[in-house]
Amino acid sequence: MSHNTFGHLFRVTTWGESHGPALGCVVDGCPPGISLTLADIQNYLDRRKPGQSRFVTQRREADQVKILSGVLPQEDGETYITTGTPISMMIENTDQRSKDYGEIARQYRPGHADYSYDVKYGLRDYRGGGRSSARETAARVAAGAVARKILPGVTYRGALVQIGKHKINRDNWDWAQVDQNPFFSPDAETVPVWENYLDEIRKNGSSVGAVIEIVAEGVPAGLGAPIYSKLDQDIASLLMSINAVKGVEIGEGFDSAELTGEENADEMRIGNDGHPRFLSNHAGGILGGIATGEPIVARFAIKPTSSILTPRQSIDQDGREVELRTKGRHDPCVGIRAVPIGEAMVACAVADHYLRDRGQTGRLD
Amino acid sequence: MSHNTFGHLFRVTTWGESHGPALGCVVDGCPPGISLTLADIQNYLDRRKPGQSRFVTQRREADQVKILSGVLPQEDGETYITTGTPISMMIENTDQRSKDYGEIARQYRPGHADYSYDVKYGLRDYRGGGRSSARETAARVAAGAVARKILPGVTYRGALVQIGKHKINRDNWDWAQVDQNPFFSPDAETVPVWENYLDEIRKNGSSVGAVIEIVAEGVPAGLGAPIYSKLDQDIASLLMSINAVKGVEIGEGFDSAELTGEENADEMRIGNDGHPRFLSNHAGGILGGIATGEPIVARFAIKPTSSILTPRQSIDQDGREVELRTKGRHDPCVGIRAVPIGEAMVACAVADHYLRDRGQTGRLD
Amino acid sequence: MSHNTFGHLFRVTTWGESHGPALGCVVDGCPPGISLTLADIQNYLDRRKPGQSRFVTQRREADQVKILSGVLPQEDGETYITTGTPISMMIENTDQRSKDYGEIARQYRPGHADYSYDVKYGLRDYRGGGRSSARETAARVAAGAVARKILPGVTYRGALVQIGKHKINRDNWDWAQVDQNPFFSPDAETVPVWENYLDEIRKNGSSVGAVIEIVAEGVPAGLGAPIYSKLDQDIASLLMSINAVKGVEIGEGFDSAELTGEENADEMRIGNDGHPRFLSNHAGGILGGIATGEPIVARFAIKPTSSILTPRQSIDQDGREVELRTKGRHDPCVGIRAVPIGEAMVACAVADHYLRDRGQTGRLD
Amino acid sequence: MSHNTFGHLFRVTTWGESHGPALGCVVDGCPPGISLTLADIQNYLDRRKPGQSRFVTQRREADQVKILSGVLPQEDGETYITTGTPISMMIENTDQRSKDYGEIARQYRPGHADYSYDVKYGLRDYRGGGRSSARETAARVAAGAVARKILPGVTYRGALVQIGKHKINRDNWDWAQVDQNPFFSPDAETVPVWENYLDEIRKNGSSVGAVIEIVAEGVPAGLGAPIYSKLDQDIASLLMSINAVKGVEIGEGFDSAELTGEENADEMRIGNDGHPRFLSNHAGGILGGIATGEPIVARFAIKPTSSILTPRQSIDQDGREVELRTKGRHDPCVGIRAVPIGEAMVACAVADHYLRDRGQTGRLD
Repeated sequence: MSHNTFGHLFRVTTWGESHGPALGCVVDGCPPGISLTLADIQNYLDRRKPGQSRFVTQRREADQVKILSGVLPQEDGETYITTGTPISMMIENTDQRSKDYGEIARQYRPGHADYSYDVKYGLRDYRGGGRSSARETAARVAAGAVARKILPGVTYRGALVQIGKHKINRDNWDWAQVDQNPFFSPDAETVPVWENYLDEIRKNGSSVGAVIEIVAEGVPAGLGAPIYSKLDQDIASLLMSINAVKGVEIGEGFDSAELTGEENADEMRIGNDGHPRFLSNHAGGILGGIATGEPIVARFAIKPTSSILTPRQSIDQDGREVELRTKGRHDPCVGIRAVPIGEAMVACAVADHYLRDRGQTGRLD
Repeated sequence: MSHNTFGHLFRVTTWGESHGPALGCVVDGCPPGISLTLADIQNYLDRRKPGQSRFVTQRREADQVKILSGVLPQEDGETYITTGTPISMMIENTDQRSKDYGEIARQYRPGHADYSYDVKYGLRDYRGGGRSSARETAARVAAGAVARKILPGVTYRGALVQIGKHKINRDNWDWAQVDQNPFFSPDAETVPVWENYLDEIRKNGSSVGAVIEIVAEGVPAGLGAPIYSKLDQDIASLLMSINAVKGVEIGEGFDSAELTGEENADEMRIGNDGHPRFLSNHAGGILGGIATGEPIVARFAIKPTSSILTPRQSIDQDGREVELRTKGRHDPCVGIRAVPIGEAMVACAVADHYLRDRGQTGRLD
Repeated sequence: MSHNTFGHLFRVTTWGESHGPALGCVVDGCPPGISLTLADIQNYLDRRKPGQSRFVTQRREADQVKILSGVLPQEDGETYITTGTPISMMIENTDQRSKDYGEIARQYRPGHADYSYDVKYGLRDYRGGGRSSARETAARVAAGAVARKILPGVTYRGALVQIGKHKINRDNWDWAQVDQNPFFSPDAETVPVWENYLDEIRKNGSSVGAVIEIVAEGVPAGLGAPIYSKLDQDIASLLMSINAVKGVEIGEGFDSAELTGEENADEMRIGNDGHPRFLSNHAGGILGGIATGEPIVARFAIKPTSSILTPRQSIDQDGREVELRTKGRHDPCVGIRAVPIGEAMVACAVADHYLRDRGQTGRLD
Repeated sequence: MSHNTFGHLFRVTTWGESHGPALGCVVDGCPPGISLTLADIQNYLDRRKPGQSRFVTQRREADQVKILSGVLPQEDGETYITTGTPISMMIENTDQRSKDYGEIARQYRPGHADYSYDVKYGLRDYRGGGRSSARETAARVAAGAVARKILPGVTYRGALVQIGKHKINRDNWDWAQVDQNPFFSPDAETVPVWENYLDEIRKNGSSVGAVIEIVAEGVPAGLGAPIYSKLDQDIASLLMSINAVKGVEIGEGFDSAELTGEENADEMRIGNDGHPRFLSNHAGGILGGIATGEPIVARFAIKPTSSILTPRQSIDQDGREVELRTKGRHDPCVGIRAVPIGEAMVACAVADHYLRDRGQTGRLD
């Protein structure tokens, strides 16, 4: 796997910096004959878009996606049919205030990749985080919108389940709530708690971490691979590649360390429909790297936004000790906007495994 | 990445089943001119080897590794020099009691990959778990022993930090303890607690999960890559590929969700030696996918062994409902033997990134 | 290797169709700190550009390249410095006369990929050849311009050595001639012969094949790899990926079949400078997949342009037998414009091997 | 693609040197449920085996293959069923006369990879050519035997069509002849010519080159890929990876340079069976990288064996000028034994494309 590409048969290459003319991706391996519209893609980009509530960065980007290749425009002027050739998508950067970043061009912001980039590359694009800006994730969401089309009948949904120490009450879980509040919370009762908490965080110029849960339903049993390309491994890998992610879990995750074998094993029976069914889903839908047919459940932890107003000790490129605070427009909880990104990553992993499995076993058609 | 290969320039392909004649790996991309001995490799295999205490499986395998290619034997009869060509290593299976597994050949053991394998492949090698047996990890450990030679000056050490609900006391952390008890515990005081607890688990024919922590010290700042081949991502991916792993963390991991930006940021100063230093290491040694020079800290959770003596509800290949209990020789806590495997995986990820970075930037020489 | 990507550490992904809004490429893995200008890239594109003489297609494309990412613009307004992140380049399509192709939208042009595409994908973009248009090669040339910067001191030069049955006289070989005639001929005496011959071909609405030779000088001995990623193999693979190529040779190529071991072996002596030197170069600069330090010599054969005015028997998508002749603007000898493409492919192969070798052996710095 | 691996979904990794304990390969991605026997594989190895006539090396290797993983032995004791996990195969080296090579351990044999290896790696296994020994190709033939099973109904056949200046008469082509003479000649009349010619070459301690032609019949139209993973490109790449190959052609190959568009275009009609058929096959069965359904025809040129008895000028590792002649057992025409190797390479390329296409388009089932 290259540094800016992921996937095996459904391959995504992203490119672009925060303050260049544009960013985008090339989706290679999408099967031919799939119908899609710009709106299919734009809807997911809009969910990720900044500036939609006071709890996310006020940077305002139109984030309008263009499709440059890989599709045949249909006569209705809206629909495209994929041709099986690489789909190139581009999003122009429109709201770049490079001056915001001028004074910290030579300073290493704590928690950011400034220092490690400079040591690796000897130089870096300091404007808006350059390549490691969260803007790169717009390209992932565009790719994910295509990935969702590959295996019909699968839903990929995400929700925020924790901000700081405040967790949702899982008994209140209601997917319908997720798009009705600015936090992607599935628990309406948690919304005011998070609002108050984040208002305080925001006023203090501080930030806080979060946990996101992604659930994929409808992934057929048998999809995946053992050993080094486990479905859970590939999902974990892609979630871990999202900026600021520090942990990933499948199913019971770290809690499984505390369980006994009796508690953790998902027993099986034959359902009323004559098909195998599991009596529980501690495994999060994956055993031995291969889907069981149960919902795939993945969680990931996002660290607090590193750009904060409180001055922090650091150094600059010339080895001088400095105090720095990050001005500019930032998210008090960057985890919120990570929900559609996480969905996109799981959709890409499933799409890739689907094509590979159809190739290797021919059993999934 | 193929289903049985990992790495980009330092590439490892493993092969073999629990009950075939042998298992092994091919390590491709190892630089030429590196000196190694069989003992270098065997020592790590011996740490992983079953049958060393009453807390691990009593299956007795000699696990003697042979090197079949890629090296020039030196005159001392012990040392080999790598030639830059693929290093093929083989471990013969010597203690295979296939009869143990006969009666469950057609039944799906809960928590195992039996059902998902059968759906994917339409058939499976049921003997000892076949390809998804933990024996596959012996090949990883052998590959890791080579990986440790690639970048001199780095230490890769692991420890068990939790069994069931019993965590170590981190204030007692002493690396010297790790090889002095059957649990790889860095905290001597926890050892009797775990002994009692696991004796009970073992007597009940039950099992329990665990958490392992791997620390790599000496990895140079600047090693790694942004975006889709982040050093933490590749470490997480490889740890997640180990059998029974359900969660992975870097640095603060899931706890980072509860921190504020002020708490989480690792501040920097110039050390007495004139070099940059960090005042803390919440990041676990990696920022933006690239090493900071601080110790790399990764943790992973292993679910309880699925093979337990308590009867569980399941089904068989013919769709019949059954009750089954797994006889045979098994680990009450498979997490214990995962410590050297986790070390090997981190060593392989670092070795691969080192070769890639030396290629791309030429800065690490 | 994916369907639209080549390279291992220096990776190129191209995208785009003949009649979409644009085409382009993403160059991933370019080391940081390399200086380049738009003119560096544009110069090579201009050599490949159509419409420059009566012997190539009259389609007129500006073929102006834009760099969208991966570089830091410098203060002079002309120079860029690479940052080590992916370099996205785009060329807009400006002269698309889709109507030219209307009547053959459903017919399979003999010698073209129309039929095989339709069987594979079930649909195709028939406009101008879609993805398999020679326009795709503009993206290769842009990538090659970056590749030429990777390993300083290497020259990549190409020449046309045969059109139809008319071969150059190798005794007249003069690199200075190559850019002074519309054929990239290194032999001034052959130019009028080819002019007369191609004028006749063109007037008949016919076409003819050609042979191109690429020479890379300055590639250091030791660059390359044995077995499955031989330097000659990778060069051959990339040359073979150019549209219409039907054969590839290294050094003596097919003539080596007629040589004896005595004739073919390149003997060695120590030169006056104390360095090893070869007394001949039958090997074309590569032994066992690894460069010897001698000039690398590769040749490839391009079949005649399939679009001709003479009616040919074919069938259409509905299984009807048809007679078809290809109108529109085409090259009588598509091989001419393949010279800069071949150079680009060899430059990319060498750049990739250089980064890989620097990674694996660290010996090339 | 790694240095010792090829393929994308059907992946082959080979390992081993001429004078180590063994050599072998790991075939990853073979679909489950395929029936094969040791004899299936051994038959092809026996065709490649040295020592079968006076025209090939007299080294005597049993070349007995063992299957170490990836299969379930069936009750008949002969048949195996593939499980979808990696198939590891091993061939032990039994006839190693290392002393033969002693005196040239430090000298660079002209035409061999000795010098280029030493520059690249800084050391090499000089015994019998080490990794670049033709023995490596035994592993390819074993992998090819598995590849032949992937897509039923395809035949892969090869023939020698030229030794030195002596070409077969294509009008005499008879596949039945190929296994009835020691040259794999399809033309019985050429056999005595080659016998006399090679006897002379052999007596002189000389060697000569050859051309091999591989024909794959039954590859379905639509198999392959455009642009960078063309079916012809992948075939050319694998043929070019065989030791001593200096040129590769598809269909008309280099002769296509001399054809006009009218001559080269393969016209189409609807056959009596209602299916499309081509009236000729200049394309060699591939257009735009995708199979047309016609026989795939590939040729490759092999240079004369570099090991000859005539003394040649060279240098040694210490920069001294030497005269050397290669003693030991060698092939006067190494091209003869390349026939089954070429077949194996084409079979592997087709198998890989078949699995990828089934994955991407789902159309080939």
